[in-house]
Amino acid sequence: MIEKYRTHYSKEIGEKEYNNIVSVAGWIEDIRNLGSIAFIILRDREGTLQITCLKKNNKELFEKLVSLPRESVISVRGLCKENEKVRNGYEILPEEAEILSVSDKPLPMGVVDRTGIEFETRLDNRFIDLRKKEVQAIFKIRDKVIDSAKNFLRKNSFIEVHTPKIIASASEGGTDLFKVEYFEKIAFLAQSPQLYKQMLMATGLDRVFEIAWYFRAEKHNTTRHLNESTAVDIEMAFITNEEDVMKILENMAVEMWNSAKTCEEELESLGIELEKVKTP
Amino acid sequence: MIEKYRTHYSKEIGEKEYNNIVSVAGWIEDIRNLGSIAFIILRDREGTLQITCLKKNNKELFEKLVSLPRESVISVRGLCKENEKVRNGYEILPEEAEILSVSDKPLPMGVVDRTGIEFETRLDNRFIDLRKKEVQAIFKIRDKVIDSAKNFLRKNSFIEVHTPKIIASASEGGTDLFKVEYFEKIAFLAQSPQLYKQMLMATGLDRVFEIAWYFRAEKHNTTRHLNESTAVDIEMAFITNEEDVMKILENMAVEMWNSAKTCEEELESLGIELEKVKTP
Repeated sequence: MIEKYRTHYSKEIGEKEYNNIVSVAGWIEDIRNLGSIAFIILRDREGTLQITCLKKNNKELFEKLVSLPRESVISVRGLCKENEKVRNGYEILPEEAEILSVSDKPLPMGVVDRTGIEFETRLDNRFIDLRKKEVQAIFKIRDKVIDSAKNFLRKNSFIEVHTPKIIASASEGGTDLFKVEYFEKIAFLAQSPQLYKQMLMATGLDRVFEIAWYFRAEKHNTTRHLNESTAVDIEMAFITNEEDVMKILENMAVEMWNSAKTCEEELESLGIELEKVKTP
Repeated sequence: MIEKYRTHYSKEIGEKEYNNIVSVAGWIEDIRNLGSIAFIILRDREGTLQITCLKKNNKELFEKLVSLPRESVISVRGLCKENEKVRNGYEILPEEAEILSVSDKPLPMGVVDRTGIEFETRLDNRFIDLRKKEVQAIFKIRDKVIDSAKNFLRKNSFIEVHTPKIIASASEGGTDLFKVEYFEKIAFLAQSPQLYKQMLMATGLDRVFEIAWYFRAEKHNTTRHLNESTAVDIEMAFITNEEDVMKILENMAVEMWNSAKTCEEELESLGIELEKVKTP
């Protein structure tokens, strides 16, 4: 951890830190100012924590902090005290604070408010939308799942490759490709790494995989199609029949599923419960 | 391992397999036919092995195998015998063979021949070029190096993301972008994930990385520029100054270097010796 702004993420603070000085940094999710005492909920990547400001301790610091609009970014250095009444068992009594960024007021959209937000507004303010726990959860689970897929494939002798995305001619028919002006020529965006993967089989590399970009120029009006997407793509040689490929893919899917299952907090924030799976 | 065509890669065969039946599969690198005995060098992803065919044991099988052109693909089931005179300490005495693919004759280029091959010929026959040990070595080292970078970054709290490659407007000036016909609109290929990475910092995800595609439409006539390339790209927030980033990148580079150093055979085939490195 870089010590200047943050010695601990919210989640990393435990008994060992009680009665010690720590630094925390993140976004102000909420401020409750009761006049002589104020409670600031600070959010970082791992969760939230409470900063308890007493006016009598440091009037200047108190005023500075309570005047900040929500979603401002601060770093706070202070004493960590055990407090059973606080959600995660401790609070921080600030001694110093650095204001890293003061947010606009009013914000175009809230982060924790329960009010409905239009989809357009969310897209226009994606950097705020992504502060929501349930939206970040998707990124965190995705990271875990990708990692488990790669580890599984490497364990099974697959080599990671990266194949070209600008290609000279269509791989599976010409209608659904994006055209690229490639200097004096016309090129296309790859629909899939298909041909490259197959060519790699002829080289003897035997088993390859790629987290591959797919570019598909089909017009659609469903929410199940993407013109640009990524996928875990594999190719393997010397198989007996399709069962061999299915076995690898089934086992990989189970590993990915199980790694998602370890993201308990993230799944909870999404309101999802994953059942146990096993290979067919 | 899938048992039908191959129970072992060449490298996996050791004392435990001596006097046992094994199956091996791969490309015929060379055949030396001495009339009553023939030596076939079979190449798989992990190396080569020797198949020793005795005419008197099975005339039909002998004729079938020795008549194959080099670079044909076969699977051989046979007895593994210790033989100190053979390069890797054993030979296979074939009992059955399946011919999976008979190669063209003459081949457009050789795999192990010492004769010079024009660069154009190599590109036109990339699937053969990639059978060369020294060309495959690049793919294998690359795989190891990427894996070590990812493991290092995950250990340091980085989350893997994949950002869009088709973008609506230039990130760093408009001259060096590839134009894409995006339905009725004009779009561009991403020069770098810069803006997305930065936006992710504003979300609080804190540390992200991507094996990112870079598309850059600069004309060039050097061998050091690529219009399409991949890179390990990171972004981190709450740093004190550039030293924090440099520390991460330096340590990552050292890990990548050290993981390349473990690829002893591959480096040897490339004629490269890597010196020890440490962080500055």
